[in-house]
Amino acid sequence: MKVGFIGLGNMGLPMAANLLKAGHEVTVYNRTSRKAETLAAQGARVGEQVADACGGDVVFTMLADDHALESVVFGENAIVARLSPGAIHISCSTISVALADKMAEAHAQRGQRFVSAPVFGRPEAAAAAKLFVVAAGEPGAVEACSPLFDSIGQRTFRFGDKASAANLVKVSGNFLIGALIESCSEALALVGKGGVDQRAYFEFLTSTLFNAPVYKTYGGLIVDQKFEPAGFAALLGLKDVRLALAAGEELRVPLPLASLVRDRFLNLLAHGGGALDWSAISQVAARDAGLPSYIDQSPHPESSAPQGKRAT
Amino acid sequence: MKVGFIGLGNMGLPMAANLLKAGHEVTVYNRTSRKAETLAAQGARVGEQVADACGGDVVFTMLADDHALESVVFGENAIVARLSPGAIHISCSTISVALADKMAEAHAQRGQRFVSAPVFGRPEAAAAAKLFVVAAGEPGAVEACSPLFDSIGQRTFRFGDKASAANLVKVSGNFLIGALIESCSEALALVGKGGVDQRAYFEFLTSTLFNAPVYKTYGGLIVDQKFEPAGFAALLGLKDVRLALAAGEELRVPLPLASLVRDRFLNLLAHGGGALDWSAISQVAARDAGLPSYIDQSPHPESSAPQGKRAT
Amino acid sequence: MKVGFIGLGNMGLPMAANLLKAGHEVTVYNRTSRKAETLAAQGARVGEQVADACGGDVVFTMLADDHALESVVFGENAIVARLSPGAIHISCSTISVALADKMAEAHAQRGQRFVSAPVFGRPEAAAAAKLFVVAAGEPGAVEACSPLFDSIGQRTFRFGDKASAANLVKVSGNFLIGALIESCSEALALVGKGGVDQRAYFEFLTSTLFNAPVYKTYGGLIVDQKFEPAGFAALLGLKDVRLALAAGEELRVPLPLASLVRDRFLNLLAHGGGALDWSAISQVAARDAGLPSYIDQSPHPESSAPQGKRAT
Amino acid sequence: MKVGFIGLGNMGLPMAANLLKAGHEVTVYNRTSRKAETLAAQGARVGEQVADACGGDVVFTMLADDHALESVVFGENAIVARLSPGAIHISCSTISVALADKMAEAHAQRGQRFVSAPVFGRPEAAAAAKLFVVAAGEPGAVEACSPLFDSIGQRTFRFGDKASAANLVKVSGNFLIGALIESCSEALALVGKGGVDQRAYFEFLTSTLFNAPVYKTYGGLIVDQKFEPAGFAALLGLKDVRLALAAGEELRVPLPLASLVRDRFLNLLAHGGGALDWSAISQVAARDAGLPSYIDQSPHPESSAPQGKRAT
Repeated sequence: MKVGFIGLGNMGLPMAANLLKAGHEVTVYNRTSRKAETLAAQGARVGEQVADACGGDVVFTMLADDHALESVVFGENAIVARLSPGAIHISCSTISVALADKMAEAHAQRGQRFVSAPVFGRPEAAAAAKLFVVAAGEPGAVEACSPLFDSIGQRTFRFGDKASAANLVKVSGNFLIGALIESCSEALALVGKGGVDQRAYFEFLTSTLFNAPVYKTYGGLIVDQKFEPAGFAALLGLKDVRLALAAGEELRVPLPLASLVRDRFLNLLAHGGGALDWSAISQVAARDAGLPSYIDQSPHPESSAPQGKRAT
Repeated sequence: MKVGFIGLGNMGLPMAANLLKAGHEVTVYNRTSRKAETLAAQGARVGEQVADACGGDVVFTMLADDHALESVVFGENAIVARLSPGAIHISCSTISVALADKMAEAHAQRGQRFVSAPVFGRPEAAAAAKLFVVAAGEPGAVEACSPLFDSIGQRTFRFGDKASAANLVKVSGNFLIGALIESCSEALALVGKGGVDQRAYFEFLTSTLFNAPVYKTYGGLIVDQKFEPAGFAALLGLKDVRLALAAGEELRVPLPLASLVRDRFLNLLAHGGGALDWSAISQVAARDAGLPSYIDQSPHPESSAPQGKRAT
Repeated sequence: MKVGFIGLGNMGLPMAANLLKAGHEVTVYNRTSRKAETLAAQGARVGEQVADACGGDVVFTMLADDHALESVVFGENAIVARLSPGAIHISCSTISVALADKMAEAHAQRGQRFVSAPVFGRPEAAAAAKLFVVAAGEPGAVEACSPLFDSIGQRTFRFGDKASAANLVKVSGNFLIGALIESCSEALALVGKGGVDQRAYFEFLTSTLFNAPVYKTYGGLIVDQKFEPAGFAALLGLKDVRLALAAGEELRVPLPLASLVRDRFLNLLAHGGGALDWSAISQVAARDAGLPSYIDQSPHPESSAPQGKRAT
Repeated sequence: MKVGFIGLGNMGLPMAANLLKAGHEVTVYNRTSRKAETLAAQGARVGEQVADACGGDVVFTMLADDHALESVVFGENAIVARLSPGAIHISCSTISVALADKMAEAHAQRGQRFVSAPVFGRPEAAAAAKLFVVAAGEPGAVEACSPLFDSIGQRTFRFGDKASAANLVKVSGNFLIGALIESCSEALALVGKGGVDQRAYFEFLTSTLFNAPVYKTYGGLIVDQKFEPAGFAALLGLKDVRLALAAGEELRVPLPLASLVRDRFLNLLAHGGGALDWSAISQVAARDAGLPSYIDQSPHPESSAPQGKRAT
């Protein structure tokens, strides 16, 4: 297929590379061109503007947030203006449900098709084409994208014909991880202050009831206080829980645990921890309990840009 | 070994049976004698009072709560008064950290030994001798109990020489499950109100990031609204989160997520759901979102006694 | 002075009337013109478009929310485009801190002046020129507006030269009222379920420690379940607590109590209570406790528009 | 009347003095006798044991907590054992609803009468006989105590014939103050971080909407960071919110705001602030926002006993 790909960050770059590897004809575009060049060596055409990526059957977008995505979707020379009727925009970014709905409507008005397909997995999973793809949109369009999803992921889950449903699934999934981090943080603060060895405690948990990769990953990061470099930065974690809360507000669904997790992120950011791994919200619970805490030890200027985008 | 066993509920009965099966000489005592009789057929002596179970090397206790345990431990003819010097009291109940400390001290004053050994697992796991035993206390005493633990469980985890540390691990473990239920409840309310099929959503989660038995178990109960009969009753769930909060209060550890879970239990109980499975706290999040909720459908008189004691 | 006034709702109408009464020359504009006509009888000129209200020394805006305000401030023929250099835009609406900052910058770029001056008080207070005005902005501009503030309010409080500081004060003030409602709601649910007469309880509180109009007003509404017609609708209450949370997010200030109040509003709205008085969030606490609750009695379709804008 | 008075702390001492001043015959008892001696000079008999204070028509108790009160009420030579049939025990302590119920029953079994009469007011109000008395119990008994209440307070509020209702009113009242402190703490953190002068902000609030002594008192303490010496120590504040939560648990009333306030106290205590004024929980919100906070400045060893018992 003839494919455009916009957004070559930690996730977009390996995803685009896998599309090339699978034999698709790919035109890439990135705001800064350096990353695009590495793909040129693998056979990609490098577009000079958004419009250059909009000439094929499909255009992927994989950008940081609503704002970044809106700037390539709406406006002159942007996706909605340039995509051919019948062509498909596949949005993989973690964005708001509201923006997904807005894009779906805008594309429909132009006779274009829109598929939301956010992904779960770290950059390593993206590189190995082992992502989980969560897709929703008009069934024919989703079906048409099926080979593309197979090129980037290990499995695709479909959630009906309302595209934004996939975004709701994505933001709720990241909320669940945030909640898991908070629960482990409180449990570790409790037993730690009570004199229990935190490492032994976590080995116990993950050998028994909580024998799951997600507990092992995050429990390990917390116990080892391994927050740098960030797999997934706290600033991005805040973004995602905010998206879950925004969806809840639209739908009138109170989410008290999501609010708690959001407050933990703000607390961490107020102490300069925005660039730390999001599991560093554990240090708020530790500090609140009067335990030694990473956020008390040294200033982590919030100004530093978030690094890395793991997992989730 | 010559062993006493006090408390023949859903968990105690199969545990005592496994001790018999392993060849130990067991004297059982239960407040109501009917259950003891089933063990008599398997070779147990049936005591008529607490003291009858205190004549051996070891006495196990497996009772519902602090109150029940205190009534067999303290006072005339109770365990502290009747156990021989050097003999060991193994406390398997889910009780407060404070009571564990109090018992440890009382036994030490009499030259007796005290081991806290709460267990994780449902009645079926108890029957299959597949419990996880969490043990703490004076190392020699814990070592001496080792063959007994092997008779009832699949693996024993040790947490140092302060007996109450094992209780802290137990109550924090149950808190983690409660937190997991709450997180799934909110996520399901959110996506459900957004029109996503809850069953498909949960299949996705447990096939990917949350591929863990504990998510499968509780997610399944919530999605299927299968709250009766209770595997582990809400009233007992409330007890356990209360114990975690009490430990946190003693240790000066704020646990906002535990407080949230506690409020969910109170909410459920205020609507008559005390005898439902503890995963029924999910129905509070559903009701709050304006979704159909189990607790709106029919009165579940709180008066009914909690039934069953699963898992955890 | 020559004054424009845009937005003639429950609050704007009496404010504009008081400016007329004080002898100012006032050109009013409202999206729907009926309300403007009542002022014409009192001597106002009635503008046909936003620009008509921008020809004088000062233009007031008093609109429902960020969206409504942005539509009259930005764009062709809107305030920023039409106000003379040196002229002042006085923004009285309850809006986000972020929008206030954005307007301040836009006006500065055009050599115009911007003053934020949200007000506290109900429509009756507006009618009686008894509002409290909270003003911030460049001192000379605020000083110049002083006679105008005296025409609409009983007292003006100044908060420095950053205009958005006044908005922060406003949204935090409304948050404090929401928090007060929540605290009374929980206390009343507690004593009410314990058999204490709620009315006697509230009379006691407001005769002693909490002898303050704000407690009398809201305690009275709750005890009497007098939620219709709304003095200040729940939908507006949600808006204001959301603004406080948004400001907290920008500034990295966790506000757990504000999050709780927000969840109460969402809960109320999920049950159709958006048009009820915001003190109706009390009925969530009552319902959670298993007490009879207004929101259980009858459907209050959320679709109905919020009515009234009281006080605060 | 012939009156006994047990417990001569900050509150009990002036209350007993006022009973003497009003002409009653008072026998006092305190665990440590020094304080009793100051009353001897004013005409009190000084008892050497609890029983000595139980010989009259009435015995008052004014002690620190459930534990202290139980030790003088139950057991040999304690109040229940020594009070004459028909005589009245007036309990003024801030204690649990459950203990009040337990005492009511124990006294009834002996044909004695029990009145709960907790008081609101600081030591200065106690000295000036300006307390507010909240009384409940069998009407005849409350009526009989009426002249005594008039000797210590400015006004008595009655809450029916269930004695513990008065305790519920008391603990809910203190919860309301704790909630007020929390709300002001968050608002001040928000505007403070936004650059608003906190003192000006609070003057504004208390000159307008929140023109009430309770806001002035606590807002003033927070803005001035005047936490030492404590008017009412954080440790006592924690006790009272815990009593409210315990009552809520018994009655199945979720109290999320009370849980939040409790967590604030634990947080403060984990940082050594138990002896500070309870308004110091404000410093948790400040610290969470990254603002300078009293609890970061210096260690306040928790070991120090709580000092003072103000107000409330």
